[in-house]
Amino acid sequence: MKPEDYIEGILKSDRIALSRAITLIESKKKEHRLIADEVIENILPETGKSLRIGITGVPGVGKSTFIEKIGKFLTSNGKKIAVLSIDPTSTISKGSILGDKTRMEELSVDPKAFIRPSPTGNYLGGVAQKTRETILLCEAAGYEIIIVETVGVGQSEVSVKKMVDFFLLLMLAGGGDELQGIKRGIMEMADMIVINKVDGSNKKAGERAAKEFEKALHLFPPNENGWVVPVGTASALEHTGIEDTWKTILKFRDLTTENGHFHSNRENQNLSWFREALRERLEQDFFSRHHVRQNLKETEELIFSGKLPVRKGIDRLLSGI
Amino acid sequence: MKPEDYIEGILKSDRIALSRAITLIESKKKEHRLIADEVIENILPETGKSLRIGITGVPGVGKSTFIEKIGKFLTSNGKKIAVLSIDPTSTISKGSILGDKTRMEELSVDPKAFIRPSPTGNYLGGVAQKTRETILLCEAAGYEIIIVETVGVGQSEVSVKKMVDFFLLLMLAGGGDELQGIKRGIMEMADMIVINKVDGSNKKAGERAAKEFEKALHLFPPNENGWVVPVGTASALEHTGIEDTWKTILKFRDLTTENGHFHSNRENQNLSWFREALRERLEQDFFSRHHVRQNLKETEELIFSGKLPVRKGIDRLLSGI
Repeated sequence: MKPEDYIEGILKSDRIALSRAITLIESKKKEHRLIADEVIENILPETGKSLRIGITGVPGVGKSTFIEKIGKFLTSNGKKIAVLSIDPTSTISKGSILGDKTRMEELSVDPKAFIRPSPTGNYLGGVAQKTRETILLCEAAGYEIIIVETVGVGQSEVSVKKMVDFFLLLMLAGGGDELQGIKRGIMEMADMIVINKVDGSNKKAGERAAKEFEKALHLFPPNENGWVVPVGTASALEHTGIEDTWKTILKFRDLTTENGHFHSNRENQNLSWFREALRERLEQDFFSRHHVRQNLKETEELIFSGKLPVRKGIDRLLSGI
Repeated sequence: MKPEDYIEGILKSDRIALSRAITLIESKKKEHRLIADEVIENILPETGKSLRIGITGVPGVGKSTFIEKIGKFLTSNGKKIAVLSIDPTSTISKGSILGDKTRMEELSVDPKAFIRPSPTGNYLGGVAQKTRETILLCEAAGYEIIIVETVGVGQSEVSVKKMVDFFLLLMLAGGGDELQGIKRGIMEMADMIVINKVDGSNKKAGERAAKEFEKALHLFPPNENGWVVPVGTASALEHTGIEDTWKTILKFRDLTTENGHFHSNRENQNLSWFREALRERLEQDFFSRHHVRQNLKETEELIFSGKLPVRKGIDRLLSGI
């Protein structure tokens, strides 16, 4: 397949062309990357029209089921949605394709939904870059809502926050123990918190938790974009919270579109994506040098234990070049 | 003065030698930097023995008075303390030296206290590096407690968090409006929150605010180091909160020393300082190249508005080298 074939296929919303183009993005071969670059450059004018939603939460919070429910709700309302994921652990398990397919049983066979598991990669930066480019391809293929899913541990949710318009944090009622898995700092990144699995005997505790969180969030500094972060509840069992969540997302979009923050956020994301990618490229070039590879570990050990000043350590690595 | 003179002077706790060595660190002249590097390398074995405390809060929260009070409390208990500041705005006002001296009237004439205003610099990274090195010099000169003060706006408090053992956030009662100045994400970085100016007619509101914050913080994910973030109150007028804050800081130190987090935090800070400084150096080298300087602005504008793909933009800048 030539670049034109991919471009034509994607613009015609052909799933196979789209899948293959994503595979090119994920490939480590240089000739694949060159084709991918040409494809992206050509589809660029057709991108940016979707609503990009990030969803995070610790394992066990019910992310997949929540995404399946909101996904089915959207496709049954005629929307085309794509679900991408960033899972830094997928490199290890190697099972994320099967995992995602079986996890979202209904959505994975829905003709209006496109599900793509996390690309594997050696480091998060690379995975994030690939997901950003995949968002562009999905948009060019006519997907109107892009959901980027991630696990609420490690650094991946910061990456996702930087590539979406709306960032949703799923939590469980109870506080304390359940929060063990979540990293500090995530709560202040959320545009909405949904307490999940609020049903049956868990209902009262869930509703109380929602109220407590709402109160706590009022103590946070306000968002620059004027958005007051709401706390909702949801249950897959009792079919609650899905439509409300969607309405909230639309409210957010309307408010930020009107006050200009939706657009300026996208522009700033473009620029910081560029700067990050550039920095990564410079670092990759540097760290792949022979002298650096030979001396990095020892230098870092001396720095770590405080035996070598930082500036001397840098000189040491730069001197051999 | 030769490097040996600075080293000897600092190790003898000579204030003039210390001040001059800091001036070398802040200098842009290469010959000064070379002397500074040699000084730091030689005093390194004498560093690391202080307790490093970061204090942040928006302008008007009463930072200077709070630091003066806690500083006087410590020096009157026989401790030697240094107060450094990171103020990204000091470059503009150029008045920070006079400002700091007049702000902390008592502390600035205390022989057991050493006050140094924020170094000026073109960018925060550089200022942060200089402050980190200044901490080392102060430690070698025998200062047992180093307070690094910063304004709770912009990015400077993230830098300070990364160079201290304990991070204190000062706030005012009332919530809402007062929080406008504080950036999101700072609350989750704090090891303690102190509601300041809790006196007179403000007392009830202040105590209520402290309780609300304490409750809200329980909803945050727990700290890895096992520390439960407390909320205190303080008043310079009514002389309250200073000793309690200090006791809390000691409790934190004891807990984290015992469970090993105090030490591992220092080691990780060393390593991330090194990696940041290295990255900055690589970027500086890159951005100072003729081709990059000529094309950066145009490239970034195309990226910003979404007219050029990120990878093409990077190729564009790298191609001319």
